[in-house]
Order: sequence, then structure tokens, then C-alpha cells
Amino acid sequence: MNDRIREILSWYDSENPGVRTNLARMLNHGRLGGTGKMVILPVDQGFEHGPARSFAPNPAGYDPRYFFQLAIEAGCNAYAAPLGLLEAGIADYIGDVPLILKCNNHDLLLDEKDPISAITSGVGDALRLGCVAVGFTIYPGSAERTTMYQELREIAEEAKAAGLAVVVWSYPRGSGLSKEGETAVDVVAYAAQIAAQLGADIIKVKLPSEKVELGEAQKVYQKYEIPISTLTERVHHVVQSAFNGRRIVIFSGGTYAADEQFFDEVRAIRDGGGFGSIIGRNSFQRKKDDALKFLDTVMGIYKGSIQ
Amino acid sequence: MNDRIREILSWYDSENPGVRTNLARMLNHGRLGGTGKMVILPVDQGFEHGPARSFAPNPAGYDPRYFFQLAIEAGCNAYAAPLGLLEAGIADYIGDVPLILKCNNHDLLLDEKDPISAITSGVGDALRLGCVAVGFTIYPGSAERTTMYQELREIAEEAKAAGLAVVVWSYPRGSGLSKEGETAVDVVAYAAQIAAQLGADIIKVKLPSEKVELGEAQKVYQKYEIPISTLTERVHHVVQSAFNGRRIVIFSGGTYAADEQFFDEVRAIRDGGGFGSIIGRNSFQRKKDDALKFLDTVMGIYKGSIQ
Amino acid sequence: MNDRIREILSWYDSENPGVRTNLARMLNHGRLGGTGKMVILPVDQGFEHGPARSFAPNPAGYDPRYFFQLAIEAGCNAYAAPLGLLEAGIADYIGDVPLILKCNNHDLLLDEKDPISAITSGVGDALRLGCVAVGFTIYPGSAERTTMYQELREIAEEAKAAGLAVVVWSYPRGSGLSKEGETAVDVVAYAAQIAAQLGADIIKVKLPSEKVELGEAQKVYQKYEIPISTLTERVHHVVQSAFNGRRIVIFSGGTYAADEQFFDEVRAIRDGGGFGSIIGRNSFQRKKDDALKFLDTVMGIYKGSIQ
Amino acid sequence: MNDRIREILSWYDSENPGVRTNLARMLNHGRLGGTGKMVILPVDQGFEHGPARSFAPNPAGYDPRYFFQLAIEAGCNAYAAPLGLLEAGIADYIGDVPLILKCNNHDLLLDEKDPISAITSGVGDALRLGCVAVGFTIYPGSAERTTMYQELREIAEEAKAAGLAVVVWSYPRGSGLSKEGETAVDVVAYAAQIAAQLGADIIKVKLPSEKVELGEAQKVYQKYEIPISTLTERVHHVVQSAFNGRRIVIFSGGTYAADEQFFDEVRAIRDGGGFGSIIGRNSFQRKKDDALKFLDTVMGIYKGSIQ
Amino acid sequence: MNDRIREILSWYDSENPGVRTNLARMLNHGRLGGTGKMVILPVDQGFEHGPARSFAPNPAGYDPRYFFQLAIEAGCNAYAAPLGLLEAGIADYIGDVPLILKCNNHDLLLDEKDPISAITSGVGDALRLGCVAVGFTIYPGSAERTTMYQELREIAEEAKAAGLAVVVWSYPRGSGLSKEGETAVDVVAYAAQIAAQLGADIIKVKLPSEKVELGEAQKVYQKYEIPISTLTERVHHVVQSAFNGRRIVIFSGGTYAADEQFFDEVRAIRDGGGFGSIIGRNSFQRKKDDALKFLDTVMGIYKGSIQ
Repeated sequence: MNDRIREILSWYDSENPGVRTNLARMLNHGRLGGTGKMVILPVDQGFEHGPARSFAPNPAGYDPRYFFQLAIEAGCNAYAAPLGLLEAGIADYIGDVPLILKCNNHDLLLDEKDPISAITSGVGDALRLGCVAVGFTIYPGSAERTTMYQELREIAEEAKAAGLAVVVWSYPRGSGLSKEGETAVDVVAYAAQIAAQLGADIIKVKLPSEKVELGEAQKVYQKYEIPISTLTERVHHVVQSAFNGRRIVIFSGGTYAADEQFFDEVRAIRDGGGFGSIIGRNSFQRKKDDALKFLDTVMGIYKGSIQ
Repeated sequence: MNDRIREILSWYDSENPGVRTNLARMLNHGRLGGTGKMVILPVDQGFEHGPARSFAPNPAGYDPRYFFQLAIEAGCNAYAAPLGLLEAGIADYIGDVPLILKCNNHDLLLDEKDPISAITSGVGDALRLGCVAVGFTIYPGSAERTTMYQELREIAEEAKAAGLAVVVWSYPRGSGLSKEGETAVDVVAYAAQIAAQLGADIIKVKLPSEKVELGEAQKVYQKYEIPISTLTERVHHVVQSAFNGRRIVIFSGGTYAADEQFFDEVRAIRDGGGFGSIIGRNSFQRKKDDALKFLDTVMGIYKGSIQ
Repeated sequence: MNDRIREILSWYDSENPGVRTNLARMLNHGRLGGTGKMVILPVDQGFEHGPARSFAPNPAGYDPRYFFQLAIEAGCNAYAAPLGLLEAGIADYIGDVPLILKCNNHDLLLDEKDPISAITSGVGDALRLGCVAVGFTIYPGSAERTTMYQELREIAEEAKAAGLAVVVWSYPRGSGLSKEGETAVDVVAYAAQIAAQLGADIIKVKLPSEKVELGEAQKVYQKYEIPISTLTERVHHVVQSAFNGRRIVIFSGGTYAADEQFFDEVRAIRDGGGFGSIIGRNSFQRKKDDALKFLDTVMGIYKGSIQ
Repeated sequence: MNDRIREILSWYDSENPGVRTNLARMLNHGRLGGTGKMVILPVDQGFEHGPARSFAPNPAGYDPRYFFQLAIEAGCNAYAAPLGLLEAGIADYIGDVPLILKCNNHDLLLDEKDPISAITSGVGDALRLGCVAVGFTIYPGSAERTTMYQELREIAEEAKAAGLAVVVWSYPRGSGLSKEGETAVDVVAYAAQIAAQLGADIIKVKLPSEKVELGEAQKVYQKYEIPISTLTERVHHVVQSAFNGRRIVIFSGGTYAADEQFFDEVRAIRDGGGFGSIIGRNSFQRKKDDALKFLDTVMGIYKGSIQ
Repeated sequence: MNDRIREILSWYDSENPGVRTNLARMLNHGRLGGTGKMVILPVDQGFEHGPARSFAPNPAGYDPRYFFQLAIEAGCNAYAAPLGLLEAGIADYIGDVPLILKCNNHDLLLDEKDPISAITSGVGDALRLGCVAVGFTIYPGSAERTTMYQELREIAEEAKAAGLAVVVWSYPRGSGLSKEGETAVDVVAYAAQIAAQLGADIIKVKLPSEKVELGEAQKVYQKYEIPISTLTERVHHVVQSAFNGRRIVIFSGGTYAADEQFFDEVRAIRDGGGFGSIIGRNSFQRKKDDALKFLDTVMGIYKGSIQ
């Protein structure tokens, strides 16, 4: 455990040593091991968006083993997926990459205004599969959010008692928000705060836009001249909003960015004090060679070997 | 355990030996035993559609013992039914055919837009009746799907801990979908993916039509020129969508097909890499002699003894 | 145990000996003991319809002991009632008549479109009161039916493990059905099938009318020329729909029939292969002497001593 | 329920109606039904003494069905046996005779000075087999008696909550007593009192001899001139010792008595206020015709049709 | 299910269909499938006697997979072993032979006078490993027998509720018996009776000698001239002692018999009405080819193809 990892773990002092051990397993694994930065491969799109939309661009992804291979070869800190995908692929990759079991999921065969994810697996599954963490999505802004927060609370309580870390996907959605508001900087910062308050060990949010959604918030942002004009500033603000950087906050990219734009976003995350990226479609929807090169650049930026 | 069965079981390596044993019991039973193909007799129509609609065409089916006889004489891999039907018929057929307890059911005395099946039996019942698996229906596309996924997750966790396999009927229905969309190829593929992600050991879907229901999916099917013009191609796509064929996917026929058309569908399932058929009304709604001949042809096609 | 009782019990071979013993206790008790026919006295109307509507016609019924006396003196096979009525009357009639604890009940102080009964007692109560069975009402056709089926499943599992038989009142009602549809022959047959599938040992349904409610069913009744023009034929069809007569199906009369009409209905139940009657208001709403004479005729018809 | 049964049940007023119902089932069953007297067939000798010693005299007894037949044909009030014997014989005799599950048993392959019976079945078994009572043996006088009393207390609590009656075999044995003391009148009376104190509904003791075992007791018997010179007097004293006759006390005979001597003992039980006999070896170790005649005489004496 | 298997299963009518299914799985498996006879391979000697004593004669037995191969190739009805041996070998033989999990075991590193086996696995293990039965050893004659009977009762109750059959090794041992008495015919018959009373579905005992151990029993054997001079007669007596042949009783051989002597014993088991053999050391302590030939002869004798 180097000094940076020691420092990060010190923020989790009230977690039991098991949770801290599993955080350390992720932080010390892969190409970014020991840097305090993380790149996680998440693959829940088969469930969330359907198989063709997810895997047709790179049909290797129809096979559950592909994601293990990709995460391992790229040197990701962890690989996150729903129950079935982990179960169907793990046999050949035992012990080769830290695993996060995504415990709730949502599909698009009904596209409700106020979504809620179904609980699709649990702590017992995570333990018997040898995972280091459970993952859970909340939709702040949805009329169903109360149920989701409570479900998270229950699974987090059980997970931490068993020494598993808790990773929260905090994705504002639902009738409380405009479409653009879902990535408004005040909303993303708020979502990070809620996840931190709910006990998340690692928080995943989307990259925030310059928009401020909520009227009452807008007044404050103006009055106190909170700097949010650059992405670096906004990342900094979101990280600050998650207990002043004392919780690991990582950011997801979207789908459509050109690579150079994506790399610039990674630089902003790095410079704003973010802890890393969680990169799904942008990695597994291209051929493996291309994906490995892409992830190599991302990790280079985080390590500082690439500016 | 021959090489093909060994290969299939290798995909289920993260299941305990009990689940794999019960999968083997089905795969090794009956006329298709050892081929890796399955024909299952399901009889839940008395509950799902009412007794007269189900059994008047062949009144022998009013008697619970008839389905055991039919499944045994035809050499089916398994017989699936709700609690009452198994309880009332099993005594004379102990050990003669693997049994799947259908644990949730829906009736048509109220025809809701967003259906949900009632849980009508459970793992304890399956064990005391000597079943090899529990069966569970989900309706992706229904506003009630979240509840159903969670019910499935709970019953699957309990079943697998007890060494029982989990068979999921994944039938898209509900306000999220058009009537034709229920069998659209993108929707069926998506339904297969969801069942696989939820931990299904065996997945039952309907044969897909050429239609693509969802707009976002349509773009992908076109862009990547996913071949879906023949039934064989569509079967292949659905099987691919269930972890690239690493989960057993079987297909149900409808009611009204002429025999030759049905046999052509079986050929398409076989040639597309499907694992078999689950044939209810098309078998038990005709006289037994006729049904045995019909199933004999179906199995012959799967075995390859009939082209 | 005579041959007829032995035959009936053989249908329940997958139940444990305790359940079969309690079925035998009912089948062997009273004037119809050993005939395979049953007449049960049910008194849940105080709860279901209110006291005055139920007991004013014969005020003796305000006293819980009256129903024990009536059932015993008439030689009924069993007496069924909710918790309070059994508790308040049993002391003087210990062991004198088999008791069925009606475990859920519904009142009319709110007359919902989609009713659900409240669970008002359970298996522990049935055991401490010395009952032979639990009774449970389901309303197929109600939007609440899923909940009711699941409640029945839970209570049935617990009851059978404790050796108690399960009697299901299967009464179609709710927004899925027209008023006349509640007793339509297809609906009653469907309701009997559902109860059987849910594991009912004894099924109580209403006498079916000639009406066919459901469109899809109508086609089948016509195509296969299912005979339903006489009450005898309809009874036969309903009994057939409950596992071809391998479950005990008994029928309730209504309120207003003239005695001769009622006796004709009993003849139709007998000739159609029904197993008996459950007679509440028609017996306890008349003076005891009259009721005893009335029930004597009913039982005489079942025994064959009256044509 | 006639007046005598009503009187007997009145003593059990603090038991729930279920326990009283099961007492009534025994009291109302068989040739002595309604008399308040009981003759019970117990068969635990296969376990307690070994099969040859038990069944060689009448090899029909090797078959578990034989005892059901004997108890039914003789018109016994109940048949008591360990788990295996009930399970292996019950199928053909469902509902034909009240059953008592003997829940603990002892064998002679080790003949300890201070015996304790092993718990070999429980309340769940009694319920699923349709029994009316659990039976339990205690050995007052054994160094292990404390454990046995506590085991009885636990099983009795559970049994009564489930409406089962509790029958206690109270057999003084062990290092606290001389061999003759096991049937000494003071010891038998004491054993009856202990069983009553432990909550036994029915108490089974051996016929007492004239001997008084305990020194302190001897003084009292002499001082108060308690009449114990005739068997009738001793039976009266034992019944008095079980709450002045407000608990059912029945007596076992031994093996070797000549029939006339046995009948005289039955007369003494009857005249002393005993409630009946539990007759094992003396009934099942003779040919069935002989046994039926023998039991017919015993029951005749209890009914008063034979003096 | 042929007529003989149907007849055997009819004796187990009070067991649930699950237990009967697992009995059928054993009875229908292997070379003796359908004959009603069984040959079971048991391997607990590594635990009971130590590895070198067990496996040095044929070192192939050090490998857990060897016993699966042997049982499968020989066509045994089942293979029985402790937890570790099953866990370490099962992966390559899923579904190929019915498995019995030996749930308690004893070692010789302390050789007590009154032994008790340790509970080393349970019903949950048996289910997750896909076993058809649990196995349990009792030592009648040991001062610890009471504890063992109670442990068996608890595991049997749990196993049967989960549909698993219960196989009891009933091996008299301990301070209550002489060394020769352990196989005395009265003791073996008594041990079979105790196992049957405790609810064993299949009973394993040692072949009885002509000796009669217990004084009281001796009188009976002489008085009733019970024929025990030939092994066939003694087998008959033991089978009779297990509910007159209505429980499956199988016999173990010893180690040192010459093959011809062993085959004669098998003939005696067959002719005396025994249900088969459980053959450990005599099969796995010789080279596989030799063992297969040996078992082939044994099975031939049971099938009747060899006289």
C-alpha cells in the first residue's frame, strides 16, 4: 500500500477492514494500480439497451467471455456486470480481475417516465462469485427514487457487513427533471452528494454540462460565482460535492464522442480531481485491438505518461 | 455424459453440481437424450387459457395423468406444469420423466394491459415433488416487469441453492409493446438477453418474426445489416443474444400452424442453432396417436434422422 | 375406509397421510359418511353480508352455538365458519362435527369493483381449534386476484405441511367479468380449474348457468359441441374441468330458490358427478325443524334413497 | 358428545379446543367409544425389545399393516407406535383408527442402569401423519430423568399448541429404585402424579404391586392407613394420585399373565376407577382370531356387558 | 416404472413424491436398473480407516475421480461417499451415477469403546451436489446411540422434506455388545428394525452370523425355532425384521472373503430376499479390471443370469 492508496483508504476509516480491502483490491489492480486512479469496464447494456444495440457493433461482445478478456488485457481496475454475464463468463478468468456485481437493472421494453430498476441479484451472489463490490443504480429525479434509495440502503448494509464495497451509479432521470437537466452541473453535483450520503464507497456520475437546472440552485451558483464554465471546473465542483473529494468519484462518457474529444474529457476529469472513468460502449463496441489502444491512451492520460 | 453434454454443461460452470446434475437429467432423458437438443411438454394452458379452450380438442387432457403418459411415451426431455397438475398426476409416474414446476401463472378472467403472473408454488414444492427445475414466466414490456424480475431473482436464488435448474419463459407483453412487437425479432432477442442476465439456465422464447419493434434497435439492425430475413437467421440471432449460444434457448410454436409449416420451423430452429422446442397445444390438443407421430417427426428432425 | 373412499383418497396420493386423514374425516362423517358425497354447512354470511341480512330470518343464528347444533343434528359432513364463530361456539360440541376454518373474509361496508378478502385467521388457529381443514376464498376476475392466489399458496403450503386439507371457494368476481359472467359455465369451469391448479383439495363453486362469457371460449364450446344445455351437463363439465373429477368439487346454491327447484339442482349435481353441496342461507335462514327436513331431503337425494 | 365424555372433557378445560377434539376422537372411537373407557394398542416393542422377541410369537406382526388391522378390527380407541411403523403401514388405513406417534424410544442393545429414550420423531411428523396425539416415555428414578422431563415439556408445549393431545408413558426405572420398586404402589402413584404435573393429557402406568418402596412414603401409608391391599384399591389410589381422577389414567399389563388373571386385573382397573388398558404384547403376540376374542372380553368388561 | 419398481415404491406411500423419485432414480439406474436389486459402491474408508489402509492396495483410489469411474463403469445403482470425496470428483461425472452423501463419519485416531460419528455434512450439501439421498450411520449398542438416533431423526426430517431419500448404515457397536455380538443374527435383525423405526428408506446392515447375542432373544429363537442355520435363512430373518420386507435392506460384505465365498454370500442375499449389496473394499481395493469383473459377477447373480 503506497502513500496515495493509504491516503484514499483513510477516508473510509469507518468502513470495516473487509470493505477497505476490497477497495484496495481495485485501487491496486491493473495498469493504474497504486495511482489512485481507476478505469472500470462496465457492461450492462445488453440488459439496459438490448443485445443488438449493444453488441452488433462488435459481435465479439455477444460472448460473455469477451469482457473478461478485454478488462484483463487492457489492465482495467475492475469489470462490472449483471449476474448472468458474470456467471456465464467467469470460469476461465478466476482471480484475474476484480469484479463488481451490478445488482439492479432496467430494460427499455417499456420506457417509463419515472423508471425504477429491478433488483436482479444480491450480496449472496456477489460473495459466491468472488466479487469485490456490489453495484447499484439510483435515479434521483424519478418518482420511484424513494424505493430505490431504500433498496440501496438495504443492499449496502448487507454488502458492507460482508466486507463488500458499494459502487453507486447515480443517474438523475424522471419526471422531476428536464432531459437536459439530467446532466446539468447542479443536478450531477446533487446526485453525487446523494450517493455519498447513502453510503456509496465509489460514485459514478455522468460528466456535467454547464447548464444549471434548478431555480433555487441557480441563484446560489450566481451569488457565489461558483466556477462552472470549464469541464475541469465542473468536475472539480462535482468531486467537491461528494464530501470534498473524500469519496471516489468516477465519470462515464457517452457514446458518440470522437476519440480526441473523449481524451480531452479524460484530461478534464484528471485535472479537476476526478478519480477516473467508467467506460463501456466506447471500449467494447470497437474491435479489441482498437479498444486496447483506446484504453491505453486513457490510462496514459491518468498516469500522466500522456499529457 | 457424452462430449456434447459435457460441452453444454461447461457453460454452466458457475452453477453448483446440483443444478448441473438436473440440467444433465433433462439433457440425457428421452429420445433426444444425449443430443444436446430438447423437446419439452408444457401444460399450463388450463390455468392460462381455461380448461375448455385447452382440453376440449382432446378431452383426454382433462385428466392430469394424460400429460405424464404423453411426455413419457413420446420420449420428451421434460414435462412442465403448475402445482396442481403435477400433484394430481405424479403418483403413477414416479421417476419416469423429469419434471419442471411452473411456479407462477396467469389467467384470462381479467385481461389486463400490463399483466403479472401470480406465484402459485415454490422451491419447497418442487423439491417435495422431485422436480428437476422450477419454471417462471416474465413479461418484459409490462409495467409489472420489475416485480416479476425480482420475484424470479428470489426464486432462482433459492432454487439454485437447492440444486434445481431455472427455466424462464420470457414472453414480451404489456403496454410497452405493440401486439406484433411481442414477437418482433429485436424484442425476442432482447427478452432472451434479459432472461440470461437474470440467471436463467434454460430460456424459452417465441419464434421471432421479421419485424423490428424499437426505433433505436431498427437503426442498428440496418446499420450492421444483421441478417434476419429467414427464420433460421432470426433463430441464430436470438440464440446469439443469449450469451452467444452459451445458454440453452428453446422455442415455442403457436397453435394454428399446419404440421408441415411447424416442421419447417423446427428445421429452422435446428439449423439456426436453437436447442429445441417446447410444444404444448400442438401436441396435447390432438389424439395421442397423432401426437406421438407428430412429436416423433419433430424429434427426428432434431436428431437429424429426418431432414 | 370403504372402496369409494379409498378410490377418492387415491387421487390425493401426493398429499401426506395427515391431509388424507382429514379428508377421510369429512368423507366418513355424518349422514353421507362413506358415500363419497358431502353436504357442508358454511356460515360466513355474518361477515360477508352483515348480521341482520344473515340472521334476522331465523334469529337463532345470532347465537354461534346454533350452527354447531344444526350441522350436527342434520348430519352434515363439516361446518365451515370464520375464526370468531368457531371460537365462540365450539366448547359444547368438541369432536361432534369436522370443522373448516374460513381463513379469509370480505365485508360489504365497502363494495369495491375488484374485491379482495382479508386474511382473518390462519393455520395455527385451525390447529388449536381442532379443525380438519382451512377454507380460503379467491375471486378470479378481480384485479386483486394475483395477491389472493399468492396468499392461498402460502396458507395451503403451511396447512398441508400440518396435515390440514385445503378447501377453496372459487368465486369469479371483479372488473374482468360481467355480473352474469360470474356464473357463466365457462367461467365457473375455469374457476374450478384454477382452484385445482392452486392445490385445492376440495373446490367449491357456484352452479353454472348456460351462458358462456368469454369470446375465445365461446368458439370452443361451439366448435366441439360441448354439451351445456342442462344443469346436469354443466355440472359434469365443471367437474371434468377440475382434473376430470379427480378433485372433490361441491356446489353452492343461491338464496331464493324454491325448495323443489333446489332439490332439482341437487339431483343435477348428483347426476352430473358432483360431490355434493355447500348450503348456507338455504338452511340456516329457516327454523331448525324446517332446515333439518330440508337437509334430510337433500341428503336423501345424494344417498339415492330419494330419487 | 354424551354426558360422560362431556364430563371428562370438562377436566381439560384449560387445553385448547384442538387438544380436546383429539381427546374426544379417541374417547369416541371404537367399541368403547362414548363410555369414557379406552383400550389402546401400543406397538413399540420392535424398537424396545427387538423384532424376534416381539413378533416371533405371531409372525404376522413383522408386517406394519398388521397392527392397523388388529386395532381396527378389535375396535381399539387408538393405536400407538414409533415413526417407522406408522409410516410404513398407514396408507391403507387412512382415517380408520386414531393414531398416537410414540416420539421417543429406547432399545436394549445397551442395557444401562439409568436409561434415557432417544427422541425419534416429533410434532411435525405427528401432524403430517394425521395423528391425534404424541406419546412420550419418562423414566422417573433414572439419573437422566431431568433431561427427559424437559424434553417432554418441550414436545408437549409444541404438540398442544398444534392441537395434539399428549400421552405420557410414566415408567419408573433407574438407579434410584429397586427392581421391585418400579411397580411399588407408592412409586406408580408418584409416577402418575409427575406425569400429571408435566401436563400429560393421558397417563399410562403399570399396574401397582402392594409393595411400598420409599421409606418416607411407607410411614405415611401406614399412618393414614391408605388402603392398598387389593389391586382395585391400588388402582384407585393411583387414579386419585393423578389429580383425583381428573386426568385419564390407563394401565398396562405385563406379558405373562394367564388370560383369566388378566381379565381380573381389568376388572380391578374398572372397579378402581381406572380409564382403561394399553395392551401390547398380550394382544399382538397371539394369532389375530385369538387376539380379537381376547380384546373383545377386555372391552366387554369395561363396557359392563361382561362382569 | 415397471411392476416390480411400482411394487417397491408402494411401500413408501407415506413419503412425498420427491423421496419416491429419488428412490426410483437409484432403483432404475445401472445394470440392475428395474430389477428391484441394488449394488451400491460406498467409499468412506479413507475417513473411517485412514488413507493407506484404504487405498494402498489399489493406489488409483487416492484419486477421488476413480470411484466415480468405477461406479459408472460397473453400472452400480449409486455411489456413496463423504462430502470431500464427492466435491473433489463430481465435476467430470455430472448426472452419470446417483450419489449418496454420507453425512456422518468416524475415524480411528481415537478408538473409543462407545463410538459416535461426527456430522460432517448435511442436507444443503446434498442438494447443491445433486445427490439422491443422504447416508447416516448409527451404532446401536453404543452409549452414544441416543445422540446418534436424534441426529438421524433431525437430518431425516430435513432430507425428506427436500425430497431426498435416507440411507441408514445400522452397525451395532459399543459397550453393550461383545465383538462377535456385532454381527449376531438377533443383533443385526434388531439393528435393521431400529433403522426402519427411525424412518430409514434404505437400510444397510452387515451379514449376520449364526450367533445369538442377547439372552432374552436366545430363548425366543429357540422356543419358536426361528430358522437361522443357513445364511439364506438369516438374511430372510433380517429382511423380515425390517417391516417384513417392506423396506429395502442391503448387506455389506467384509474384506477378506475369497471371491467364491463372496459370491455365495450374494446368492444367499438374493435367495433370502435381500435387496442387494453395498460393496466397498472388496471392489475398490483391487485393480479396476478385476473389480469390474468381480462386480459383473455379483450383478449377474442378482439378475439371475448367473446362478
